[in-house]
Amino acid sequence: MEIACLDLEGVLVPEIWVGVAEHTGIDALRATTRDVPDYDVLMRQRLRLLDENRLGVDQIQQVIANMAPLEGARDFLDWLKARFQVIILSDTFYEFSHPLMRQLDFPALFCHRLKIENGRITGYLLRQKDPKRQSVKALHALNFRVIAAGDSYNDTTMLEEADVGILFRAPPSVIKAFPQYPSVNTFKDFRQEFRQASERTIPE
Amino acid sequence: MEIACLDLEGVLVPEIWVGVAEHTGIDALRATTRDVPDYDVLMRQRLRLLDENRLGVDQIQQVIANMAPLEGARDFLDWLKARFQVIILSDTFYEFSHPLMRQLDFPALFCHRLKIENGRITGYLLRQKDPKRQSVKALHALNFRVIAAGDSYNDTTMLEEADVGILFRAPPSVIKAFPQYPSVNTFKDFRQEFRQASERTIPE
Repeated sequence: MEIACLDLEGVLVPEIWVGVAEHTGIDALRATTRDVPDYDVLMRQRLRLLDENRLGVDQIQQVIANMAPLEGARDFLDWLKARFQVIILSDTFYEFSHPLMRQLDFPALFCHRLKIENGRITGYLLRQKDPKRQSVKALHALNFRVIAAGDSYNDTTMLEEADVGILFRAPPSVIKAFPQYPSVNTFKDFRQEFRQASERTIPE
Repeated sequence: MEIACLDLEGVLVPEIWVGVAEHTGIDALRATTRDVPDYDVLMRQRLRLLDENRLGVDQIQQVIANMAPLEGARDFLDWLKARFQVIILSDTFYEFSHPLMRQLDFPALFCHRLKIENGRITGYLLRQKDPKRQSVKALHALNFRVIAAGDSYNDTTMLEEADVGILFRAPPSVIKAFPQYPSVNTFKDFRQEFRQASERTIPE
C-alpha cells in the first residue's frame, strides 16, 4: 500500500514568502535561510516586517489568495490522487497556505501553525523537529510504502526516510549534493517517476 | 494542529458489500460479521461468491461505480476539508472504494488491499491489526490533535484513541454501548460537533 508524500512550495505552489514580498513590495521578505541561517531569527524578522507594515493574518491571506498554484500542478495532483494516497508535507503554515490549498481542493497537509492574537500574527508554532522525516516514519509504522518528492534541502531527510525519493525542479546544488535521487523538471516526467517508483502497474 | 479522521462506509458512502449484493443480486454477499463472526471466514466466503459469479476486479469496480456517496456527503467533506486536515480511516479495500473515492475527489484514505491475479480477486491483505487505532497513534506521534468520527464497533478503538470521538448514524446498540461519545444523524449536526470539538474557532 503506497503513499505519495509531496513538498508544497516549489513543487505545487510558488515560494509563499517570495510571493508575499512581490505582492506587498516588501523586498526584505525575500530573505531566506540562505541570507539568515537561523530560522527563528529569520521568522521573527519576517513577522516583524508584516507587523510594521500593518499586515495581519487577513491581509496576508488576501495577498496569498492572489497567488496561484504552479502551472500544471492541479492536473498533476488530480492524476496523482487517483493513483496514490497523497499527503503534502510542508514547512509552511496553515494560515498562509490555506488560500493556495483551496485552489488545490485541500489535499491533506501536514505543516505548522502561526500564533494569532486579534488578527495579529504574534509568533509561530512548529509541529515538531524534522517533521518531514517524522511523517514518513509514522506512515512506515502504518505499513505504508512511501514515495516522497521535493525540491530542496529541507526535503532530503524525507527523501532519505522514504522507500523512493524524487527531486522535482531542485536547484543544481541540491541535485549535485544528492545524486542518489532521480531529478526531473516537468510534470510529465514527474508522473513517469511516480509510475516507475510504484510496485504496482500505474496507468498513464 | 488538528486532523479529522472519518470512517468511510456508513458515514460518507453506503456499505459497499450491501451495495454489491443489491447491484449483483447475490444475496449471500449481504452477510456481515454479525452473521459470520470470523472476518477471515466471511471474506473468503465473499471472494468465493464473487469468483463463482465470474466477478473479477473490473466487473466489481463497474458495479461499485454505479453506487454514489450518501446524500450530502460530498458537501460535508468539502466543508470539513476547508477547516481540518482530513484522513479517511476505513476497513474497506482500495480496489473496491476507488470508484466511490473518485466521486469524493480522492481524499487521503488509509485502508486495505486485495490480492489480484490476472483480474481475479484471489485474496486480501490487511495493512495491520487495529488499523484505525494505530493511525490515530501515528498522528499523535506527529503532534496532531485528532477528532475521529464513525458509526460502528470497528471505529470505537479509533474514537477511544482520539482526542475527541463522535458517533454518526450509529446503530442503537453502538450508541448504548458507548454513551461517552456524542451521537448525531444529520450532516448539519455533524458539522456542529466538529466545530465544538475543535480548539479553534471554526466558521460555519
